[in-house]
Amino acid sequence: MSNSLGTLFRVTTFGESHGTCIGVLIDGCPAGVMIRPEDIQNEIEYRRAGKAPGSTARVEEDRVEILSGLYDGYTTGAPICLLVHNRDVDSRAYETTRRLPRPGHADFPGVVKYGGFGDLRGGGRFSGRVTVAYVMAGAVAERVLSHAHIELLAHTVEIAGVVAQAPADWSVVRRNAGANLVRCADPAAAEAMARAIERAAEERDSVGGVIEAVALNLPVGLGEPVCDTLEGELAKAYFAIPGVKGVEFGSGFTAARKRGSENNDAFIIQDGVVATATNNAGGALGGLSTGMPLLGRVAVKPTSSIARPQPTVDLETMESAMLEVRGRHDACIVPRAVPVVEAMTALVLCDFALRAGIIPRVLR
Amino acid sequence: MSNSLGTLFRVTTFGESHGTCIGVLIDGCPAGVMIRPEDIQNEIEYRRAGKAPGSTARVEEDRVEILSGLYDGYTTGAPICLLVHNRDVDSRAYETTRRLPRPGHADFPGVVKYGGFGDLRGGGRFSGRVTVAYVMAGAVAERVLSHAHIELLAHTVEIAGVVAQAPADWSVVRRNAGANLVRCADPAAAEAMARAIERAAEERDSVGGVIEAVALNLPVGLGEPVCDTLEGELAKAYFAIPGVKGVEFGSGFTAARKRGSENNDAFIIQDGVVATATNNAGGALGGLSTGMPLLGRVAVKPTSSIARPQPTVDLETMESAMLEVRGRHDACIVPRAVPVVEAMTALVLCDFALRAGIIPRVLR
Amino acid sequence: MSNSLGTLFRVTTFGESHGTCIGVLIDGCPAGVMIRPEDIQNEIEYRRAGKAPGSTARVEEDRVEILSGLYDGYTTGAPICLLVHNRDVDSRAYETTRRLPRPGHADFPGVVKYGGFGDLRGGGRFSGRVTVAYVMAGAVAERVLSHAHIELLAHTVEIAGVVAQAPADWSVVRRNAGANLVRCADPAAAEAMARAIERAAEERDSVGGVIEAVALNLPVGLGEPVCDTLEGELAKAYFAIPGVKGVEFGSGFTAARKRGSENNDAFIIQDGVVATATNNAGGALGGLSTGMPLLGRVAVKPTSSIARPQPTVDLETMESAMLEVRGRHDACIVPRAVPVVEAMTALVLCDFALRAGIIPRVLR
Amino acid sequence: MSNSLGTLFRVTTFGESHGTCIGVLIDGCPAGVMIRPEDIQNEIEYRRAGKAPGSTARVEEDRVEILSGLYDGYTTGAPICLLVHNRDVDSRAYETTRRLPRPGHADFPGVVKYGGFGDLRGGGRFSGRVTVAYVMAGAVAERVLSHAHIELLAHTVEIAGVVAQAPADWSVVRRNAGANLVRCADPAAAEAMARAIERAAEERDSVGGVIEAVALNLPVGLGEPVCDTLEGELAKAYFAIPGVKGVEFGSGFTAARKRGSENNDAFIIQDGVVATATNNAGGALGGLSTGMPLLGRVAVKPTSSIARPQPTVDLETMESAMLEVRGRHDACIVPRAVPVVEAMTALVLCDFALRAGIIPRVLR
Repeated sequence: MSNSLGTLFRVTTFGESHGTCIGVLIDGCPAGVMIRPEDIQNEIEYRRAGKAPGSTARVEEDRVEILSGLYDGYTTGAPICLLVHNRDVDSRAYETTRRLPRPGHADFPGVVKYGGFGDLRGGGRFSGRVTVAYVMAGAVAERVLSHAHIELLAHTVEIAGVVAQAPADWSVVRRNAGANLVRCADPAAAEAMARAIERAAEERDSVGGVIEAVALNLPVGLGEPVCDTLEGELAKAYFAIPGVKGVEFGSGFTAARKRGSENNDAFIIQDGVVATATNNAGGALGGLSTGMPLLGRVAVKPTSSIARPQPTVDLETMESAMLEVRGRHDACIVPRAVPVVEAMTALVLCDFALRAGIIPRVLR
Repeated sequence: MSNSLGTLFRVTTFGESHGTCIGVLIDGCPAGVMIRPEDIQNEIEYRRAGKAPGSTARVEEDRVEILSGLYDGYTTGAPICLLVHNRDVDSRAYETTRRLPRPGHADFPGVVKYGGFGDLRGGGRFSGRVTVAYVMAGAVAERVLSHAHIELLAHTVEIAGVVAQAPADWSVVRRNAGANLVRCADPAAAEAMARAIERAAEERDSVGGVIEAVALNLPVGLGEPVCDTLEGELAKAYFAIPGVKGVEFGSGFTAARKRGSENNDAFIIQDGVVATATNNAGGALGGLSTGMPLLGRVAVKPTSSIARPQPTVDLETMESAMLEVRGRHDACIVPRAVPVVEAMTALVLCDFALRAGIIPRVLR
Repeated sequence: MSNSLGTLFRVTTFGESHGTCIGVLIDGCPAGVMIRPEDIQNEIEYRRAGKAPGSTARVEEDRVEILSGLYDGYTTGAPICLLVHNRDVDSRAYETTRRLPRPGHADFPGVVKYGGFGDLRGGGRFSGRVTVAYVMAGAVAERVLSHAHIELLAHTVEIAGVVAQAPADWSVVRRNAGANLVRCADPAAAEAMARAIERAAEERDSVGGVIEAVALNLPVGLGEPVCDTLEGELAKAYFAIPGVKGVEFGSGFTAARKRGSENNDAFIIQDGVVATATNNAGGALGGLSTGMPLLGRVAVKPTSSIARPQPTVDLETMESAMLEVRGRHDACIVPRAVPVVEAMTALVLCDFALRAGIIPRVLR
Repeated sequence: MSNSLGTLFRVTTFGESHGTCIGVLIDGCPAGVMIRPEDIQNEIEYRRAGKAPGSTARVEEDRVEILSGLYDGYTTGAPICLLVHNRDVDSRAYETTRRLPRPGHADFPGVVKYGGFGDLRGGGRFSGRVTVAYVMAGAVAERVLSHAHIELLAHTVEIAGVVAQAPADWSVVRRNAGANLVRCADPAAAEAMARAIERAAEERDSVGGVIEAVALNLPVGLGEPVCDTLEGELAKAYFAIPGVKGVEFGSGFTAARKRGSENNDAFIIQDGVVATATNNAGGALGGLSTGMPLLGRVAVKPTSSIARPQPTVDLETMESAMLEVRGRHDACIVPRAVPVVEAMTALVLCDFALRAGIIPRVLR
């Protein structure tokens, strides 16, 4: 296993869905960053509340505990350990998982890779529950990035085929997305999405969607090409979120169908600085930020756990079997994944900002 | 800059488009792998020939030179340095690049990041030319993977909106794709693609497309979740290829519109081993290989260099300007990127195979 | 800050001397290793008890808490988080440290590097207290290494100029060293060492010494030259122990005065395998283990905290000042450092064993 | 194998003693550093000329070739590849090495680890010849460090038991050490050392010695504790030099025999900045530079290759055998290792300076 992201701002997560806790260790955070527990707690709450009619019955209190790395309210430069304890754990539903792998889940390759020693209760390390670790670390990263005036947001742009209208103004996206439980900045689409989730839940099924991540006020030149590109490191982080199956930037897959003359963004002078007239590049050229808004889009598959009988195999007898996943699950994980996508974006950009020397080792 | 991929099979590239050479250093290759220069040369040739009517006039001889790490035809466990010299270099066209950044290129963020010290001739480090390094290293990785019976291929599945039919059988894809210059396994589509490229070239424009990477005979459990996922490391490598704007696996972005009951792959027993009835997962669950074919898709934007006047800015006067990119360029880089995508897949899988302990440190 | 050791068996520590806890996160431990809490607890106890008349008055209960990575008594392949809470904390003595740096301590460079934001209570991250983290992780590493029959030990070979006789037989060293509080396998020397420490303590002074680390049953070829040598990675780990000022292997610094004809170890056949007649190499040639006992020696300086007035400077007024370090300190830290040196040896060898593929990813 | 040093200034070496070339790849060098080929060439010459009566008959022209990363005389931020070709190669003497391992050499563990596939001619990757790669990269690192006014030097302080007098003034050390072939700044000792080497050579034997590395004008706070300490990373780099068996800093092993009251360095104000009255710490406390001169000492064993019959074993028959090493060797490698120790110091400090943000990513 390899549970770390980042080169200079290095984040390692630990803990299992039904274990003692979910935690994260941040090594390399600059000293002098003021962190209030509520900065982290708010992000946890936002992730927890993101839901819709079909949401899991599991409710965690999730009070962040700060074990190290802060003194007198400021980061010290030492590793920061943050965790939330697991409390509302019901592992009965997972007794058969080791033998009857759930379709769409990591059970099967996990059992093979770890020789059956894995903690499979609630999905163990592979559970979406683990993403609360990124959200905690992301809150710290956002505080660091705020010193460089970099702002982050994420919002749902599609669920169950319902596509949100593109926002006219980034400044309202966070507020509008926060106003509904599907985290969509387009109120009409948000309602349709909620209904689609509800319908899927009633039919004991699930739906997926697409999340957009946006970073504003990026300096020009973040990224460490030719291998540690801005897009590549972000994609790696996004694919660490359970359920993600695709990542694109700017015009993304539609760029493949465009002509160069359409897709190229003309350089212009805007407010005295170099900008582009369009942003098909999604804020990245040659693996480097261009200074335009960074636009990433993340495709999330429909929740694999559905309350229907599904065909699987019995790994002991090597015969066909039927499985009805019980446990407690969201009919759509997209809303909860929104702050995770934002957090991942923050972690990667914070690392790049340190690598570029844009953020000093001590902040004041 | 950060020019390495991999943890145990670590590949670092060097060289510029119009510099002395393009090279690659492989550290961590097992000892005892028989490597013939022609194994590497053939892949270079395949990349070089991949083209269509609108191809660049630049022709490089590209004879691989093996500087270290082999003895008596076998790898020794020491670092392997491979390079090709640049010969057919015409840098006149790039004299203005530092001042007038080309739309869609890395010139602008590159000049800002490296303070104007970069070698911008022919795109320097950001040129597609640099990918020959991955192809050389990929040839070595494929030789290593062959010891574990892992097979790789890549093919063009879309160019300029022309979509190839899905191949019925993986075994014919490589041969069929190799039979035409656009590297598409569907002959009818290949012809339409070639025509579309030709048309774009005539109109001094360019087109993009989509490449599919496939890995066969993967053991179950490659990948190091929760952060170094199979998909995430592949995506990071793919985004290091100039022009890539999107990456997806299995049902990818279309999964976002599916129901869980459609998208989940039922487990079955096939030929005595666990398989899945469908492969929407694209061979990866929870960041681990499932044993089914790994299916990745890579969106490539239309070539940024087009022989038309384009609006840009003069970085010295900070005023608007027009730029006509001369140089020598492909109207579509997709065909040449096909072996690069295959090579990247090989590099990532070779690293994961070593990390999983599936390939020993000495091969015999 | 950078708080990790290891490439595949990666250990990261966190926590401050007077903070909430001292913890360690192990990422990359194979699955299937049986770990009983008492395996770890015993090593903590051994470290805690190692002392002599001049020992610190601070007493910590130090009950290990296992937060993640174990299931049903076995490692799962997931990250293992271990910690001990700090309880007996008295921070009054450290109020002036930020202003009046203690000679021989990290206070001065630490205050400069971290801009005064560091937690200096009890030495914070620079305290010897932090080494309990390595001891906990080392206990896990030793369990892993035992699967390859590798055995580790460490013992005091010199304190305050009192030199222990070389042990005739490695098998008795651990027991003999454990029988006294200075961790020396030579009973007569142990007594003299204890008296020397007592004398220093009475004189409000401190003494240093030398610790020897031994690894038995190493396979031939551990180490990843030419840069990650066996000796180099061990040295790096040893220098992470507060107070270490020198590291040598085999004949070490005395090799510099020998002739090649004396220092070379002749190869012989012993019990059917290749061995050497002498072991001036200390079990390592070319950065690789030779199969002979690995012999490392670590020089530990006298404790910097002494209960005498010492000249320092006032960082605020930039004037000379006198400082009397209060706090609670050992007059000799060598005995307590013995299990830390053993733990560090275990961590490095465990990483190399995984890198060499000698220990599989799943143990049974 | 693992052939890299450094985190941000990352150096990877390649090439074998009797292969095509010895090379080095530097990834992460800031842009804008003026590098003249002669800056590198001079260091190569200094290493080549360092010798004494007993020196190897091998003479290499060693003209540095710059393959990438420079444009118009300045670094571009892209990877820098430097190499020297091997020309004067006589491999006849090494035909038996694979079967009859040379005492004191890496042959035996190397053959075991790499399954007999290694290139053993002239020691292959384990040869001292490989260190020319560090010297080339070190020349670049010194140019980078000069932007921060950091100065480096190394000199021989002991050979064959002859100990040099401590220099009164660092400013004369480099010139004085360069004035003789043993690289010792004390002229009288230098002569005695030369005679001792000559004597050993006449007796077909070899001698070792100790090299001191010094870094001046270090800023306070270089180093990334608690694991990547200044001393630990230097030690790791020094142990990568063939023949090194011990490393110490400041009072080093003698600190183990001192009292705390003697060994602690009192803080004082000197020229308006904080300094220490003595420098037993060798310029490092808590893994961080103190601003005082960094003092490291490296113990080098006597050359293993001696022109005498030595007992070994025949790995094929597993019987005792006698071996007379022919080849061409120095009776003392200390003089040639002096610039290598200096280069290693430069590489580690350059990496730490970048990690600390003391040197920007673009130098002007």
